[in-house]
Formats: sequence, C-alpha cells, structure tokens
Amino acid sequence: MNPGSLAIDIRKHAKGLRTGGADRVAIEEPLEIRLGFSTGSGPARSSMAITMRTPGDDIELAAGFLLSESIVRRSGDIDVIGHCAPPTPDIGSQNVVHVELSTGVEFDLERLQRHFYTTSSCGVCGKSSLDALRVAGCTPFDDSMQVSSDVLVSIPARLRAAQTTFDATGGLHAAASFDAGGNLVCTREDVGRHNAVDKVIGRMLLDDMLPGHDRGLIVSGRASFELVQKSLVAGIPILAAVSAPSSLAIDLAREFNMTLVGFLRGDTFNVYAGEHRLSV
Amino acid sequence: MNPGSLAIDIRKHAKGLRTGGADRVAIEEPLEIRLGFSTGSGPARSSMAITMRTPGDDIELAAGFLLSESIVRRSGDIDVIGHCAPPTPDIGSQNVVHVELSTGVEFDLERLQRHFYTTSSCGVCGKSSLDALRVAGCTPFDDSMQVSSDVLVSIPARLRAAQTTFDATGGLHAAASFDAGGNLVCTREDVGRHNAVDKVIGRMLLDDMLPGHDRGLIVSGRASFELVQKSLVAGIPILAAVSAPSSLAIDLAREFNMTLVGFLRGDTFNVYAGEHRLSV
Repeated sequence: MNPGSLAIDIRKHAKGLRTGGADRVAIEEPLEIRLGFSTGSGPARSSMAITMRTPGDDIELAAGFLLSESIVRRSGDIDVIGHCAPPTPDIGSQNVVHVELSTGVEFDLERLQRHFYTTSSCGVCGKSSLDALRVAGCTPFDDSMQVSSDVLVSIPARLRAAQTTFDATGGLHAAASFDAGGNLVCTREDVGRHNAVDKVIGRMLLDDMLPGHDRGLIVSGRASFELVQKSLVAGIPILAAVSAPSSLAIDLAREFNMTLVGFLRGDTFNVYAGEHRLSV
Repeated sequence: MNPGSLAIDIRKHAKGLRTGGADRVAIEEPLEIRLGFSTGSGPARSSMAITMRTPGDDIELAAGFLLSESIVRRSGDIDVIGHCAPPTPDIGSQNVVHVELSTGVEFDLERLQRHFYTTSSCGVCGKSSLDALRVAGCTPFDDSMQVSSDVLVSIPARLRAAQTTFDATGGLHAAASFDAGGNLVCTREDVGRHNAVDKVIGRMLLDDMLPGHDRGLIVSGRASFELVQKSLVAGIPILAAVSAPSSLAIDLAREFNMTLVGFLRGDTFNVYAGEHRLSV
C-alpha cells in the first residue's frame, strides 16, 4: 500500500464505546545528511543534519536541504548523491544520504556553524534574518509570473487529491509546485512541513529547473519564515498557504517582492504581499 | 491587545471581490539561547540554539529547551537565567536569553555536538533514537496517573478557550498541562509546536514541579517523536493530540509505558498506547 504509512493496532473511543482494530499512521524516521567537501588541506566529511522525516524521496530532501542552507545553488554543485547502502531488514529504509560536492564548490563549515541569523552588530532579530538572506545573494523578484484568482482557488483541491498518504493517515503535510495554469508539477508529503518543501525544491534542483520564476508553491499548513525563505532560495515568486502566515514570513515576502497568500480555502484567500501578480 | 500578535494591512479576496483592511498575524522572531558552563580549564560560553518563536515566556522556553536536550534536569541546575538586556525600540522584544549553569552541573559541549540520534553501532534509525533516550536516563512510567474518558474529551474545548492569540490570528499552536480533573494548569502558544511544549515544561521546571507524574499534556496539532520525547523528559505520562501521531511517536510511547491519544475531537479519540490509564 502507501509506502509513507504503516498499519498499527489501535483502540477507538466514541461516546464511551471502545472498539479495536488496525489503523494506518504516517511513518517518521530520522534521516542523516552527510557532506563530503574539499578544504585547503584535502577532502573532509561532516554530518550536516539529522531530520525526522517520512521515508521516500530522500535524495530530493537532501538536495533541497542543501539548497535551503545555500550550500548548493545548482545541480552541478553536486558531484555524487545517494544512500550510503541499500535498505536493510532491521532498519527497513535506509536513513543516511551522502552528498559529495563538486570540485571547486566552496564550502566553509566553520562559517555555517556560526549561526546564520546572528550578526555581531545588531544582535538577533527578524531584520538581521532578512539581511542574512540578502548577504547570501538573494535579490527581489521581478513581476513576470502571474496567476489568476480563479486558478489560485482551484489549487487546494488539487493538492488534497494528490495527498495519498494524508488520506490514509490524516498525519502528513504536503507541498507542491504549480504552473500559471494551476497544474501541480511536483507534489510531496512529509511529517515535517519544511521537509515536504525541501523535497519539492530538491527535485527542481536535480532537474535543473531553478530558479523557478514561472512556478508557485503551495503548502498545506501555515507559512513560517522558514518556508518563505525556501521559496526565495528556489526562485519561486508565489507562496500560497492553506493556513496563516507569521509576521516574519510577511516581512520577508515584502522585502523580496514575493507574493504571499494565506487562508486559501474554498473561494476565498488573503493576500499579505505582492498582490500585483494576481489577476482577477 | 494580544502581545503575541500584531496588526497588518492585507487584502481579502472572496468570490472575485477584493477588500482591504487590517488583520492580526502571529509574531515570529528568532530567539537565541546562550549557555554559560564550567570546564576543566575554567568558565566557557556557547550559543546553543536559535529558534523561531512567538515572543513571550522566553525564560520558560529556554528552560524547557535545555530540559528537552537533557542539559538540565531540575531548577537547581540553573544558576542564572534571563534576557541579556531589556527590550530596545529597534528590536521590539529582546531576543537573547542567557543561562548560567550551577557549579557542579556537568556539561559536555562536544558530546552534544555529536548527534543525539546516531550511534556508531547501528547507524541512524528510530530504534537508535529510542535507545538514546534510555541512555540519557529515561525510564518507563508507572501506572499511577489515571484520567477518565469524560474528562479527556472535555480538554480540547478548554484549550481552545485559552488560546487568545490563536483566536486573533488563526496562526498559533498551543500546548497545556492538565490534571486528573481536566483542569488546565499551564497553557502556552507559539508559532512552533515544540516551542509551545518547551514553554509549558520549562514553567514546570522553574516551579520545581518535575517530574509531572500527576499531569497530562495536550497539544493542538499532531504528535511527533519530538513531542513525545519532551513529555517523557518532563515525566508526564499522558500525551493527547488533537491530530495524528507518527509511527515513531507511537513506538516511543509504547517503549516507555506512556499513554498516547490522537484525534481527540468532539467525544471521540484514538488510543495508540497505554490505554490502561483511561477509565470509562
């Protein structure tokens, strides 16, 4: 059946009555992303992250994670990417992805370990988080991508129809890229919202489809700073969320001339930034 | 008004009609947690984490984070905890909390930097994540805490009534501790689910209310491995979620004889582990 879920025995309580039976739940397992890179004194390796994710599309997830962290920018920056070993019976799915950067790709482990969001001059604040993205090379979007309101309101139903594991478990987030006609180009599910988005933008990176200037991104939950940032580094100028955005998500979208839509449900939605990309 | 939200101008689209106006959104800002500790060669300091959170209850959040990471276990492990400086106009709220460990509290920065979920023997898998918690000193719960089904189904409505910022913004998660009578003891909101739980268990730590063997914990969203782990380190034997649990959350709850309830809505719920604590 669905590879992102498994059957488990549970007890259901309803109005004081108890019944037993099997139910399906979303699988959550750790994934470690390991990076090989060059230094002045030769090759080096480091564990970059362990994320709790739903197994499947792990290569895309690792690629999207490295893109989100601005460690890679294009598929050519990656020399080798793959699971460390084939799946084994006792782990069930293989939980380590190794990525080897291409020769010449600069990577400064120490800089990464100093935190992205802090600068010594102004302390820790939302403004320094925005400044860090500008320093990382992100620039405001142009206005070429347009989508009509009619198309926009049609997308949540399409996303829901594509959420096979959510239907089975009720326990997964989804993200999808879409084109100006509202067609879903790539849909991914995960227990973590950020992982679902990393899988989508990782697929775009591996397919040499970045920057995604003619794409939009839809997410099943809320729009945080982190999700707007992922859309920004992938060059996707429109982010639509089924639920609420945060204050810093709005600040970031406005700063980089992105379109940010929230509460996209039925035939209504709110526009928090970049309304000029939406035609009636 | 509500300190966790702010007013912002947006545009609302409904059935092709556009209207403008002010709306309230949940505030998201980075919080850095800095730690001072003793080493063989004298005092040392390190930045432990930057988390995107809703300002408010930052001291509790920092305390709960350190508890979740098993860096502290009781209030006496903390010598000093506070914001680095009073709020300033340009940051709006102060975004750094400094924690000084008490003399004699062992802290090994290098061990922490080696990842928690990996062991060299078996690689990265859910089983090693569970083993790591056992190594960290967590033991299975006894069966003393009991709660009736009638009480359990009354809790989501109480939680919702206490969510003042959610009502204003629709954009926040909530967590609360409750007693056997279903009374909410401490309710906290945040853009991050894990932060809301850290604020609740951080309050319990600072009030010397750990372990919380006579408490339950309710969360507004899904139950991930991470949330079950936080309940475990706080000694809270019952975790109830309004939405779905993940596979690894269920494994962890069963391993440590916790009660895990999901889809707690209306007068129905599912029991994934520890049904013996629920009386009809």
